Amino acid sequence: MSETPKSDLIVGVDLGGTKILAGVFTPQLKLLQSAKLSTKSSRGFEAVVERVARCVRDAVDEADLSLKNVKAIGIGAPGAVDPESGEVIYAPNLDWKNAPLKKELEKRLEVPVFAENDTNLCTLGVHEVELKGRPRHLLGLFLGTGVGGGLIIDGKLYRGFNRTAGEVGHMVIEVGGPECGCGNKGCFEALASRTAIFRRIQERLKEGGKTVLTEMLGPGLADMKSGDLRKAIKRGDKLVERVIEEAAEYTGIAVANLINILNPEVVVLGGGVIDALEGEMMSIIVETAFDYAMPGTTSGIEIIASKLGDNAGITGGAVLARQRLK
Amino acid sequence: MSETPKSDLIVGVDLGGTKILAGVFTPQLKLLQSAKLSTKSSRGFEAVVERVARCVRDAVDEADLSLKNVKAIGIGAPGAVDPESGEVIYAPNLDWKNAPLKKELEKRLEVPVFAENDTNLCTLGVHEVELKGRPRHLLGLFLGTGVGGGLIIDGKLYRGFNRTAGEVGHMVIEVGGPECGCGNKGCFEALASRTAIFRRIQERLKEGGKTVLTEMLGPGLADMKSGDLRKAIKRGDKLVERVIEEAAEYTGIAVANLINILNPEVVVLGGGVIDALEGEMMSIIVETAFDYAMPGTTSGIEIIASKLGDNAGITGGAVLARQRLK
Repeated sequence: MSETPKSDLIVGVDLGGTKILAGVFTPQLKLLQSAKLSTKSSRGFEAVVERVARCVRDAVDEADLSLKNVKAIGIGAPGAVDPESGEVIYAPNLDWKNAPLKKELEKRLEVPVFAENDTNLCTLGVHEVELKGRPRHLLGLFLGTGVGGGLIIDGKLYRGFNRTAGEVGHMVIEVGGPECGCGNKGCFEALASRTAIFRRIQERLKEGGKTVLTEMLGPGLADMKSGDLRKAIKRGDKLVERVIEEAAEYTGIAVANLINILNPEVVVLGGGVIDALEGEMMSIIVETAFDYAMPGTTSGIEIIASKLGDNAGITGGAVLARQRLK
Repeated sequence: MSETPKSDLIVGVDLGGTKILAGVFTPQLKLLQSAKLSTKSSRGFEAVVERVARCVRDAVDEADLSLKNVKAIGIGAPGAVDPESGEVIYAPNLDWKNAPLKKELEKRLEVPVFAENDTNLCTLGVHEVELKGRPRHLLGLFLGTGVGGGLIIDGKLYRGFNRTAGEVGHMVIEVGGPECGCGNKGCFEALASRTAIFRRIQERLKEGGKTVLTEMLGPGLADMKSGDLRKAIKRGDKLVERVIEEAAEYTGIAVANLINILNPEVVVLGGGVIDALEGEMMSIIVETAFDYAMPGTTSGIEIIASKLGDNAGITGGAVLARQRLK
């Protein structure tokens, strides 16, 4: 206990469409404690900011510390974020436009706040902490409710002209394919996100397919989670197995596209879908990607699943805050 | 005449699957003279290197100069090139593997040679000469027999881990679509290259479609060129018009994908197909790209056709040689 440093701590926050996660980190990026709250985005911007502040206070309290010990906060939000002003320019899942996240959080917590896109932060966290900053060029790909990505180029987070680079979920890979939430058809997200996987299972069920999920969750498949799919496959469910295989194949094709375009040294996959179904999906993803990528592009390239799981976002938040304080 | 500098000249070479183009440039990158030869790749590596050397000598002779006035040569080859060793690692259109292009050319010409991938060079030429080095992040997209690309990131040519970045032609955008020369299906190249366009016209013809091309070129459409398609459209040919519209729509979707992923400031299009059909294709490409790209990604972004035409490659060769001499 006496080894816990009492100052210069950093808090990383992952603000998602459904939950808020906050973690207290040492200056060496060791996670001490974390706290979780639901987002309740329907209550509006002010209420969500209030909940983020509460989640930060909860995490600090869990570590038997106070906000006075915290030097900076790094937060990721699901949308386009201006890293200078800390404004969330556009976050469809929260229904926010031009929301002054940094300013409002700093007002409440009196600690410097730095904001960034959520999957950019996940990629930054994996790069700095899990991979020790090694790859010069890294692509992060996160499959959850949606699909997001992040790019490290020449050792630094790459944001592009409008700071929106890494929107890999809306790469069209099947013209005329299933409709995406964005209005287009055949986006990677519409083929391999949790939403897409669940929709495909429901469709197969309506076509007369059989799955143990109806036993497990009832005929409407209420409250289906990625973990349920893993359990179903373990119980020999062919319908779920085939849907997950298809999602993994689409993901492999998307990874091959990105290797052809960007030729990163490492591709790291994460997010709830990968965390729950790594064993079922990763070998198919890797095989398909190496099969589809052009000869010569994949030599020495690694395609791996992140071990940070749910903590990728808060870890990246801590990395960002530490970088920006320097 | 007396203003032509007599020393420190640079030669840029564009080595393609069917033709070799060499241009003599002033140190300020003004093109003085150029020369052209067919490649005759079937004669093998040594013979092609000999022809490249001859083409360089021809261009220098056209400018009433000698190789003694040339300080360096920059050459682009259609494949993966190691920019350090100047070796062509893999060039399917030339049937080359690990071909020591730099070494063999330097032996023949006794001038320093620098080699690079051809569409990387085109992108470099457009960035430095046509756009005066302005955009920090630029994507070049070249539609000819195949489709190639190049990336400028943070003002510099970006090559990636295996120096193969920018292989945008093999981005799959229609899973299960038409077969590509690479063995995959539904690659951008299989949907919008000259090869793809010609194949689609032949298919429509076999399905009973009517086109003035059969009048212009005979029933087999022998020696069809991109320029013939423009002439056919000008004569009101609906079949050709529709095929070109489709290729432009696919190109627009590919551009949107790349804007979502990379968020460049400028996307520049070039290559034989665009040079011949700019008027017919560009407005559809721009409209489709802006329609498919995510909100917020396109603000202030330009999508333009290069004005360098056939000279993009030799211009980029001169830029490369000038950079590497410094």
